[in-house]
Amino acid sequence: MADEQGRHPSRRAFLTSAAALGAGAGLAGAARANGPDPLITEVQDWARGFGEGVDATPYGLPIRFEHDVIRRNVEWLTADTISSINFTPIHALDGTITPQGCAFERHHSGAIELAKPDYRLMVNGLVDKPLVFTYADLERFPRENHVYFCECAANSGMEWAGAQLNGAQFTHGMIHNMEYTGVPLRALLQEAGLGPAGDLSDKWVFVEGADASSNGRSIPMEKALDDVLVAFKANGEALRKEHGYPVRLVVPGWEGNMWVKWLRRIEVMDGPVESREETSKYTDVLADGTARKWTWVMDAKSVITSPSPQSPITHGPGPLVITGLAWSGHGAIRRVDVSTDGGISWQTARLSREGESKALSRFYLDIDWDGSEMLLQSRAMDDTGYVQPTKDQLREVRGLNSVYHNNGIQTWHVKTSGEAENVEVS
Amino acid sequence: MADEQGRHPSRRAFLTSAAALGAGAGLAGAARANGPDPLITEVQDWARGFGEGVDATPYGLPIRFEHDVIRRNVEWLTADTISSINFTPIHALDGTITPQGCAFERHHSGAIELAKPDYRLMVNGLVDKPLVFTYADLERFPRENHVYFCECAANSGMEWAGAQLNGAQFTHGMIHNMEYTGVPLRALLQEAGLGPAGDLSDKWVFVEGADASSNGRSIPMEKALDDVLVAFKANGEALRKEHGYPVRLVVPGWEGNMWVKWLRRIEVMDGPVESREETSKYTDVLADGTARKWTWVMDAKSVITSPSPQSPITHGPGPLVITGLAWSGHGAIRRVDVSTDGGISWQTARLSREGESKALSRFYLDIDWDGSEMLLQSRAMDDTGYVQPTKDQLREVRGLNSVYHNNGIQTWHVKTSGEAENVEVS
Repeated sequence: MADEQGRHPSRRAFLTSAAALGAGAGLAGAARANGPDPLITEVQDWARGFGEGVDATPYGLPIRFEHDVIRRNVEWLTADTISSINFTPIHALDGTITPQGCAFERHHSGAIELAKPDYRLMVNGLVDKPLVFTYADLERFPRENHVYFCECAANSGMEWAGAQLNGAQFTHGMIHNMEYTGVPLRALLQEAGLGPAGDLSDKWVFVEGADASSNGRSIPMEKALDDVLVAFKANGEALRKEHGYPVRLVVPGWEGNMWVKWLRRIEVMDGPVESREETSKYTDVLADGTARKWTWVMDAKSVITSPSPQSPITHGPGPLVITGLAWSGHGAIRRVDVSTDGGISWQTARLSREGESKALSRFYLDIDWDGSEMLLQSRAMDDTGYVQPTKDQLREVRGLNSVYHNNGIQTWHVKTSGEAENVEVS
Repeated sequence: MADEQGRHPSRRAFLTSAAALGAGAGLAGAARANGPDPLITEVQDWARGFGEGVDATPYGLPIRFEHDVIRRNVEWLTADTISSINFTPIHALDGTITPQGCAFERHHSGAIELAKPDYRLMVNGLVDKPLVFTYADLERFPRENHVYFCECAANSGMEWAGAQLNGAQFTHGMIHNMEYTGVPLRALLQEAGLGPAGDLSDKWVFVEGADASSNGRSIPMEKALDDVLVAFKANGEALRKEHGYPVRLVVPGWEGNMWVKWLRRIEVMDGPVESREETSKYTDVLADGTARKWTWVMDAKSVITSPSPQSPITHGPGPLVITGLAWSGHGAIRRVDVSTDGGISWQTARLSREGESKALSRFYLDIDWDGSEMLLQSRAMDDTGYVQPTKDQLREVRGLNSVYHNNGIQTWHVKTSGEAENVEVS
């Protein structure tokens, strides 16, 4: 009975207010005020007979009532659906793990179907012996499990021009968070034979996918030998087709474009390739028109997922759970602050567990809403001490020409009706 | 370049053997011996055109090549599929999270369909004010996130009579492991008003589901106020129908039967109900014919998931990854040992991360297989110091009449062909 020993003083304080509400208009009050509630006092149809048997769905799907919790694309952004994006319904999810079925997709030439027997991975270039691995070969190397977020560099990209997309799914939904199983890339590089450590500091790897776009990216050797995974499972099961089945690269904390899907080739080189995907794309155009490259790491960022435009408040004043996600490509989230007044004052939110490095953190702030308008914001801090900036602070440095790497503080204007809207405050 | 600094000596030793193999018959050798491999040297069909667009699967499913990674029931066990079970394909999964789509089901009167607007949860009995909560009410209480395993008390139950079911899915697959989001049960009990802590020590709660079986179970108040969750999300999304949508009880570390689905009523009582599900069922019949009751906690247990009968070795001698799952209802897994000779000698396996309390741990042992027969076993130890017993040790205490709570050490006989079979060794 730990709770009786005062371990959770903040929760106990909250419950005092919830109890008052329970005796009033909310919670149980409504049912009692209108007399007995037949949904609890009468035997219902679903208790009169049998439900579905265990042979009904060998692989299950969400119940039909959740049909709207799906990936969505935005028509005016997605004239071409092949080289395009959709968004994770983060406004309707909770916890930290993203189910594969609704984890966002971004393809450069569409999601290809590649069977395990047809799979090959070549390691070539500046190695002692070039190698070609089959899928079965990869399964013989020591494996690791890690939970990591994957965020597209263009997540929140439309918001550089001001508040545009009205929902957390669309402003921040190019992100997912899964538990990966795979082989460290360093194990495959060492199998092919690398020179002594001292000679590696100026080396790079160039990684390519098996799809038509090939989506080639250069990665410095230091990162390649650090925490990059050649992954074949996500959340326990085989990768989904749209996430790179059977094998994708996992580049923890770095922009999603580098997490090459349908991984086909890794070449060790003495410099970067300067491919299309790291020059004309995925670089940051600054105010003076010059482009900044090698902006791999996704900086600390957060967003309130509820309440938000797609997840309005559906009840009156009283207890309200404010919740959202925070993450940093540099390490673990240490703290998230929430403002209800557009950044004038801040309260420290509760993290659902100690932040994990390069993985999503879930935060909660339990408030007693007085029913008035709010300008909701969240501000993440990671374990390097970095604090998520405002959009204005970002624009001071970056100007207005950017598409990528917008980690500015998001504002939702919550009205007295409980509805919310994407706005900016200065 | 941490690996160059000797942080992983065991892995480096392993790679020495893998490299030797790479130059010989295995890995890249085979492709080179037969000339260039067109699957890597030639442009393939999937690189000639576009793949699928981002509007193809708003909610995605596994790729068709993984059609056999599904829940399965066993016909001779499942004459009635309504009050029955199926099994998680643990032989084909990796990591620790179980995807909802293939997480086992056990129903007492089938999986019912219950919409959120129709959902009610009553808290009554020895409380200050009986309450009825709607789903929307529950969303206003402070939430928590926790990863927990759920194991049916009858998992491995058929094996009391000796090795019977030929596959880890069937011997150990009545288990899953998900990240739950929910409200602590204590918060709802406190909302309804409980007496002072001193008066609660002999109190119980009786919990019921909304399905026809109602599946009532008694839980002592100490557990109810500790870590029990009233959960509405699993792995981030709404619970699936077959897992209790919209609300189930999560009773960490305790037998799955108590994790009441479609949770409908919680009554505070001054003693247990002694319901059907805790007297004629879910008790352990001992050698002398008497039944032992209140065996709630699932003791420490483990199983090798690969190689196993459904996941044979498909290659010759050389590097082999042995992997499996371990868990304890008493706390965290601290160590797993693996034997290849039927329990004569043991090697300590590598845990993929520090064990979490009442959650699955993944273990790996990377060996250099000499191609000879093996009697594979795993043995889990939890943070209370408890060591998983042999089946013979269990039978000495429990006799042969039991169905539930078989946490004995499992043996797979791996043949020189790589095929594996369920056996027992004495």
